[in-house]
Amino acid sequence: MEHFADRLIEAVNRKQNPSIVGLDSDFSKLPDSLKGSIVESPEACSEAIMKFNKSVIDSIKDTVPAVKLQSAFYEIYGPSGVKTFWKTAEYAKSKGLVTVADVKRNDIGNTSKAYSRAYLGKDSPIDCITVNPYLGSDGIRPFIDDVDANGKGIFILVKTSNPSSSEIQDLTCDGEKVYEKVAGLVNGWGQGSTGTSGYSSVGAVVGATYPEEAKRLREIMPRSIFLVPGYGAQGGGAADVMSCFNKDGHGALIHSGRGIIFASGGNDFSEAAGQAAMKMKSDVTKALKEKGICPW
Amino acid sequence: MEHFADRLIEAVNRKQNPSIVGLDSDFSKLPDSLKGSIVESPEACSEAIMKFNKSVIDSIKDTVPAVKLQSAFYEIYGPSGVKTFWKTAEYAKSKGLVTVADVKRNDIGNTSKAYSRAYLGKDSPIDCITVNPYLGSDGIRPFIDDVDANGKGIFILVKTSNPSSSEIQDLTCDGEKVYEKVAGLVNGWGQGSTGTSGYSSVGAVVGATYPEEAKRLREIMPRSIFLVPGYGAQGGGAADVMSCFNKDGHGALIHSGRGIIFASGGNDFSEAAGQAAMKMKSDVTKALKEKGICPW
Repeated sequence: MEHFADRLIEAVNRKQNPSIVGLDSDFSKLPDSLKGSIVESPEACSEAIMKFNKSVIDSIKDTVPAVKLQSAFYEIYGPSGVKTFWKTAEYAKSKGLVTVADVKRNDIGNTSKAYSRAYLGKDSPIDCITVNPYLGSDGIRPFIDDVDANGKGIFILVKTSNPSSSEIQDLTCDGEKVYEKVAGLVNGWGQGSTGTSGYSSVGAVVGATYPEEAKRLREIMPRSIFLVPGYGAQGGGAADVMSCFNKDGHGALIHSGRGIIFASGGNDFSEAAGQAAMKMKSDVTKALKEKGICPW
Repeated sequence: MEHFADRLIEAVNRKQNPSIVGLDSDFSKLPDSLKGSIVESPEACSEAIMKFNKSVIDSIKDTVPAVKLQSAFYEIYGPSGVKTFWKTAEYAKSKGLVTVADVKRNDIGNTSKAYSRAYLGKDSPIDCITVNPYLGSDGIRPFIDDVDANGKGIFILVKTSNPSSSEIQDLTCDGEKVYEKVAGLVNGWGQGSTGTSGYSSVGAVVGATYPEEAKRLREIMPRSIFLVPGYGAQGGGAADVMSCFNKDGHGALIHSGRGIIFASGGNDFSEAAGQAAMKMKSDVTKALKEKGICPW
């Protein structure tokens, strides 16, 4: 039962690539070869998504260290969608990928514990989930118990990539923004979960669209790995995400979803996803080298 | 397709009871008659929960207007748990109950839209879900689109009932607490969704454990219905929740979960749940009468 952050960094080093592909497998965007001929039932849609995910995973598995499953696109199909969610996680795991489930769960006490067991149990094919911090420690501690006991990880929302993230996250309290206060909490919550890599299994979600904020957050949470959404489709580029990394060239996992899996939008989606993943690796590596912090 | 808040208030008036029972159906707390003899597989646990829920619903359906399903206790059993979640919602609906799914979902753009369609679609047996506001308008608007189009509702987390809710929610920004700022946003988001009852289908979660805060929140969000957790097991009493109501005796839905469904903890759980629901109705009604705002 190896430490999550250590495992993740080992996988990043092995692939020489600090990026993660989002399986935001929206059925309506699937290529015609997969969705064209079927009658749209939850079961049929879920099966088409499974085929799509397998093809994408096969084409990116040697390039990227990790995938992220966006739960919403599976929950929408009820029990059969949830089955595809779990089968996808198992398939990704079997191909040696680190698996992150983007579920943004949040609750308190026994309910948080139930969510944690649902995803971060000892035998779960999910390595890590995203969590929302609005309820405070009561909502986070039950997840951290399983992080420590089962070698799992969490990424806590700190500063999200969307334009309206400012409405609550950027409110100023005693000279600090709410997201900075949350970052302070995340740093505290993660203290006991640091591995031999020096990184904690309690990470943070920090949007690629806010490079200046990321710089400050890197200082507040030196040991947290940042899951960085907003690259590509949402407008963030390789230069924008550099402030999410530490000086050792680690500490950030750059996420791209639609920009990879729907790179072509056509029946050549699998090949196109593989190429887009390689392009992203090369762009991020180039920026790391230009900044003089590439670890490879 | 009637307006959600109007439907809810009509149901509250019909039962003369502004309370909601939480189907927090934690398998480990089920009575021996349901869990004693089974081998614990996800399927068997889910089936036992379904039997439990049906019995509880049958015994409370004439007393309470609504039930709330806590998603975590179903998700923990994967696809079969999710199946029980949906079958429970359908069963409650068939017995004339308003159904709230406590999922606390949160995301942005297309992903929020997918979550919304998963729960608030036109044909969904779910009438209303809980939502987390940390991502701002981008995360809320997609849900409100379906609220308005499909006669559905949402309750947005404002001030939660747990002790550590203060860590983020009570931070002070320009003389106002974060939860007051969020309440202001909720009031704005709900403006276009008001029904003939004068109440909006965009409601708020306000914990029973913070009566003073609730008084202030009632002023900021006059048209929002409050979903009020923390009654009973978490320590809030009938007197504590009175500040959640408006002067018309409406505007709050008091929640009790464990205190009702596990009232006896034994094989007489169904009868005990029915009695506990009637006791809660009587306690809340008495407090409303003492305050001189009982609508019945």
